[in-house]
Amino acid sequence: MPRRTGRKQKRPDIFAESLALHEEYQGKIAVHSKVPLANRHDLSLAYTPGVAAVSSAIAKDAELAYTYTIKRNTIAIVTDGSRVLSLGNVGGLAAIPVMEGKALLFKKLADIDAFPLCFAKYHMQLADDIRNLAPVFGAIALEDIAAPRCFELEESLQNIGIPVMHDDQHGTAVVVLAALLNACRVTGKRFSDLRVVVSGAGAAGYAIIRMLAGIGYRPGLFPEVADIIVCDRTGILHRHREGLYANKYKFIMAEETNRRGRTGSLADALKGADVLIGVSAPGIVTQEMVQSMNEEPVIFALANPEPEIAPADALAAGAAVVGTGRGEFPNQINYALAFPGLFRGALDACATRISDEMKLAAVHAIADYVKHPRRDRILPPVLSRSVVRAVARAVKRAAKESGCARDLP
Amino acid sequence: MPRRTGRKQKRPDIFAESLALHEEYQGKIAVHSKVPLANRHDLSLAYTPGVAAVSSAIAKDAELAYTYTIKRNTIAIVTDGSRVLSLGNVGGLAAIPVMEGKALLFKKLADIDAFPLCFAKYHMQLADDIRNLAPVFGAIALEDIAAPRCFELEESLQNIGIPVMHDDQHGTAVVVLAALLNACRVTGKRFSDLRVVVSGAGAAGYAIIRMLAGIGYRPGLFPEVADIIVCDRTGILHRHREGLYANKYKFIMAEETNRRGRTGSLADALKGADVLIGVSAPGIVTQEMVQSMNEEPVIFALANPEPEIAPADALAAGAAVVGTGRGEFPNQINYALAFPGLFRGALDACATRISDEMKLAAVHAIADYVKHPRRDRILPPVLSRSVVRAVARAVKRAAKESGCARDLP
Repeated sequence: MPRRTGRKQKRPDIFAESLALHEEYQGKIAVHSKVPLANRHDLSLAYTPGVAAVSSAIAKDAELAYTYTIKRNTIAIVTDGSRVLSLGNVGGLAAIPVMEGKALLFKKLADIDAFPLCFAKYHMQLADDIRNLAPVFGAIALEDIAAPRCFELEESLQNIGIPVMHDDQHGTAVVVLAALLNACRVTGKRFSDLRVVVSGAGAAGYAIIRMLAGIGYRPGLFPEVADIIVCDRTGILHRHREGLYANKYKFIMAEETNRRGRTGSLADALKGADVLIGVSAPGIVTQEMVQSMNEEPVIFALANPEPEIAPADALAAGAAVVGTGRGEFPNQINYALAFPGLFRGALDACATRISDEMKLAAVHAIADYVKHPRRDRILPPVLSRSVVRAVARAVKRAAKESGCARDLP
Repeated sequence: MPRRTGRKQKRPDIFAESLALHEEYQGKIAVHSKVPLANRHDLSLAYTPGVAAVSSAIAKDAELAYTYTIKRNTIAIVTDGSRVLSLGNVGGLAAIPVMEGKALLFKKLADIDAFPLCFAKYHMQLADDIRNLAPVFGAIALEDIAAPRCFELEESLQNIGIPVMHDDQHGTAVVVLAALLNACRVTGKRFSDLRVVVSGAGAAGYAIIRMLAGIGYRPGLFPEVADIIVCDRTGILHRHREGLYANKYKFIMAEETNRRGRTGSLADALKGADVLIGVSAPGIVTQEMVQSMNEEPVIFALANPEPEIAPADALAAGAAVVGTGRGEFPNQINYALAFPGLFRGALDACATRISDEMKLAAVHAIADYVKHPRRDRILPPVLSRSVVRAVARAVKRAAKESGCARDLP
């Protein structure tokens, strides 16, 4: 496998180069002035005494914050550093460079001013703290927060008046669903007939499963598949498995999936399945497992940095469509296709939250962006501002139609 | 009084112009990228996968956050909106435009990246919340927080590993002390003989009094005056006044000032005094009060937007030196002379806190910047980057000498 060896040799260089870049710039983002500040008069308008009129106006009508302040274009990137990349729980301080990088993506792809808020550590009232910090922000992106904490945190912040979304969950789920729609188009499979195996029951896995099984969403909103089997480290999730009560979300998944009560390992789950969605661990899927699946199987192997099975191996074993999280292979399934447009559209609508309809609009905008999907091109290119604009337009429209937009000038 | 009438006619124009500016720009600050982002390779260094090496390094050695992230040049401007300008308790949302304006000042004068954190409302654990948000920031500026809350909040955040300073208190106190040193130079008064009346026992008043009376500071560090009398709305603070126990800080002031046990009104306090420092309310000082003071009285009338007494009236009544908070009169006593350099010097030292010595260094840097003080020029000009640099150099040096600097590359 020369490609894998090649990557492994390359990594240390990228790491050394990245450390050097970070040392040179001492931080990747800066705060700039948008207004002229050439003289005292400029300052008397941007600051005291003129600014008193602006504060007074907002004190009387809170929605004027969208007209007069950075709120309309500013989001917080919030983390407690409890699950940073593949590094695990390194805490808020060590998470800073990643959150700065995320801010760059928001800026480059969606012209959003994003600022990192890295909490040193999690505590039980963190949701209250985040709610109390909401004034400056038009939306909040939760990042790199461990499951199941990320589910609780996001849930409890859905009614604070601005959108709060955990990208790792919903960004990934939106792109996976778009990819799956187009995988059906190129293979001729019917979506509602699909038997899907999801390997991995963490943040991304749960969001994908919720969307495919309609858990917590308005019934019938998302297209549903025929059957879902969820596997975690210990095998297939089923209602009678021990220890489920320790994790509310695994309990829900066990209740709402696996209609035929299958038990066993990931290999058992994959027998006869149409689709594998891997959000788990490198190299855990073998060619034999792919061969045991239904005809023309679809493999989304999204583990990072190495996929569950190398694309060449999956194709050689008969996979019809293969997607991974990586840019050097065809069909990159990356949440960066979804989150910049989702937040851009939400901000453009001055949205109160991100509704199910807005997520669905993002799914279709991404899938439909590819006019003529092929087996090696089921998704648009990542890092395209044109894709972000298309998603943002659809999301803004859905915000209005679903009653989540503020009607502001 | 044609000048006052003139101002009153002018105000609505400034307010209207400021509202128009804010509506045009929809926020005064933006987040920009400092690093190149032209292609995928750039992104692989600034974000994944390269950034993992940076996070790992910081996880192993926390101080590397100063080398690899925005921490070294970034401060939070924190408010709960409980005392915004002269508007009072308008809350965190209405405070946003003021905090953005403050961020502009930090950027323009001191090249500091400042981001506003406006808490919707105060609560008892706010200090814990701020502490938990410290990772991203090299320092924290508390702004427009009501007394006595601002004292408690600042006190409880002195040991979090980065400087936390309430500008309204210490910025003002530093500049007042510098102004007083130079007022002594031009009038020939001896600092240690001064009898000082402070009108106003809020955030700025308490900080000035603490510094002049050495309360809570290392004994003998700051030059002390002979006597201080503090007046609030109900008159002179003295040990036997009723209701002092309701406010710990007024109790402290009553204990530590007014050595001769004077009672009565502001007019009583001013009889025979050398200096009036007004941080209270417009127009409360009369020419008769000035005439009742010692020879060559010094009047700092800092109430905003209108001073305690108009400079022309004070001079006509015999004042030797008059300072106000406003730029159109001589001797502008504005905390913007102090806070940008204080924070710049603290960041340059990667300081753990702002020590008494750092404040004293700022006092002398500001006073000594004026090589030949005159009665109408006891302070350097506000909004001068050259003054900020001089203050920053002195503060950085003092940080090292007082053991508050991190020894980083």
